Amino acid sequence: MAVYTEVGDEDLARFVEQYDLGAVLSCKGIAEGVENTNYLIQTDRGSFILTLYEKRVAEADLPFFLGLMEHLAGKGIPCPTPIRGRDGRALRRLCGRPAVIVTFLAGMWPRRIRTQHCNEVGRALAALHVASQDFEMTRRNALSVDSWRPLLEASAPRADEVQPGLADFLFEELAFLEAHWPADLPSGICHADLFPDNVFFVGDSLSGLIDFYFACNDFFAYDLATCLNAWCFERDRSFNITKARSMLSAYRGVRQFSDAELAAMPVLARGSAMRFLLTRLYDWLHHPDGAFVKPKDPLEYLTILQFHRGITTPAAYGLA
Amino acid sequence: MAVYTEVGDEDLARFVEQYDLGAVLSCKGIAEGVENTNYLIQTDRGSFILTLYEKRVAEADLPFFLGLMEHLAGKGIPCPTPIRGRDGRALRRLCGRPAVIVTFLAGMWPRRIRTQHCNEVGRALAALHVASQDFEMTRRNALSVDSWRPLLEASAPRADEVQPGLADFLFEELAFLEAHWPADLPSGICHADLFPDNVFFVGDSLSGLIDFYFACNDFFAYDLATCLNAWCFERDRSFNITKARSMLSAYRGVRQFSDAELAAMPVLARGSAMRFLLTRLYDWLHHPDGAFVKPKDPLEYLTILQFHRGITTPAAYGLA
Repeated sequence: MAVYTEVGDEDLARFVEQYDLGAVLSCKGIAEGVENTNYLIQTDRGSFILTLYEKRVAEADLPFFLGLMEHLAGKGIPCPTPIRGRDGRALRRLCGRPAVIVTFLAGMWPRRIRTQHCNEVGRALAALHVASQDFEMTRRNALSVDSWRPLLEASAPRADEVQPGLADFLFEELAFLEAHWPADLPSGICHADLFPDNVFFVGDSLSGLIDFYFACNDFFAYDLATCLNAWCFERDRSFNITKARSMLSAYRGVRQFSDAELAAMPVLARGSAMRFLLTRLYDWLHHPDGAFVKPKDPLEYLTILQFHRGITTPAAYGLA
Repeated sequence: MAVYTEVGDEDLARFVEQYDLGAVLSCKGIAEGVENTNYLIQTDRGSFILTLYEKRVAEADLPFFLGLMEHLAGKGIPCPTPIRGRDGRALRRLCGRPAVIVTFLAGMWPRRIRTQHCNEVGRALAALHVASQDFEMTRRNALSVDSWRPLLEASAPRADEVQPGLADFLFEELAFLEAHWPADLPSGICHADLFPDNVFFVGDSLSGLIDFYFACNDFFAYDLATCLNAWCFERDRSFNITKARSMLSAYRGVRQFSDAELAAMPVLARGSAMRFLLTRLYDWLHHPDGAFVKPKDPLEYLTILQFHRGITTPAAYGLA
């Protein structure tokens, strides 16, 4: 939630002249995107988002992210589409940063999750998985199971400041996950960060999926488990099986998943909880004082992890 | 440059239902306005700004500010117009804050000031002064000459941290200003903060004046002196007489000013420089570590003040 790079009127006018977008009528820095600088620009042709990539996004990954968004948009997935300039290029530089203009998506992200939202997200995630199957670029998931041990080791010495006994618990859980992580499930492009603030709705209808900057190749069911954790727990951290059933059924209506995927759901959900717990824990312990971005509570994901440890059958998620 | 109050989708939908604006299509927190929270909202009817007033704006002053904007907009001044709800009211509450929706203005503020900008600003300021003459509410200028001594006393003990000898210089200057401040010049509603970031342009044409939250009753020529200081000094702090001539001539083309106003310009410009120097000095010495907003350099206004101390005739500003 910050504007890191200020773009002046003249720099912007020269930048936009490279596109067939008409003249710039306005440009507002918006509080969206923790990692990048985003402006909502209005031109003769409508509204667009101008993104400047700050240090936390690896420049080498940008062709993957932009190519993916263009591919998905071309298949009807409601995601930002990179706009190409008259030279055919979408990615260029502005104010010393890699920069793109993408289409603007209507909608707002839902603060209070209803079952209908979960249904729409399940369907949209499946559509994303299907639509990306013929996308030819790949990107390794840098935050998958093999990254968790170094992450935990970086936080473990101070983890008990957050909750006594946390380090021991996490090492034990990690050992289980490393030993039981599935080896061979259907995989492809995952969004990998489809939290409510990355999904827009107009009324009850899903209108946009944004923030593809964690997208990577991994198990489809792992992506679904991440959504389950992000959307189907209430504010009091209780699990809402009605929402889960709605999400999983809607997903299965678009992309059938195998018995193996269903059976793996509890361990995948534990793993996804571990992944977000570990990155939040790291940010919690390492964020500088006075930073713009308030770190998220890692313990929210401890509760979610513990819930999934108690699951013995995927029926607990509402599916037979 | 911050969003202080987060407005959720459902709260916003309920709020906007009180207006004839159609449904909300999007809402982005924007990095505009240091004192308030601003959202750019898009509805079926177009773009609007939603402002939530934070603590630094006195709630008792809001009817004056909103009434003034409505009055000016009705006279063709390109400023945000408060939108009235179906109940006829413009000011209501949202998320525990006073809140209004105002019209959206196209344009961007200029980073590199050209003479044409100064011309447009001079003309727009005069038009504002003329258009507000029959506005019936008044607001005392809380940052005029009588406020400067308490402001200086609050900063004086540490002023020399900023520059050795600064406190003595400012007390000496303040004594001069208090002794020579004009008593009887044409007065009325002043914007009182018409810096470049409060003026929008589309191409070379002025398209909007914003941020009326310092507006007050004071000498018209004092408002003009504030613009002279804000627009007619270069980045190296040198005075650009071409820009000043253009601004003053354009102003005079819309509202003739008297010989007394012209003669008072050097002392008014010194006073206006003192006002911004003192508030910046106060913010510089008193801002909390890690604050969102970086304080502005008070010494920029020391150079401007010293320039005006050397002026003996208003001809130095480019007018006969």
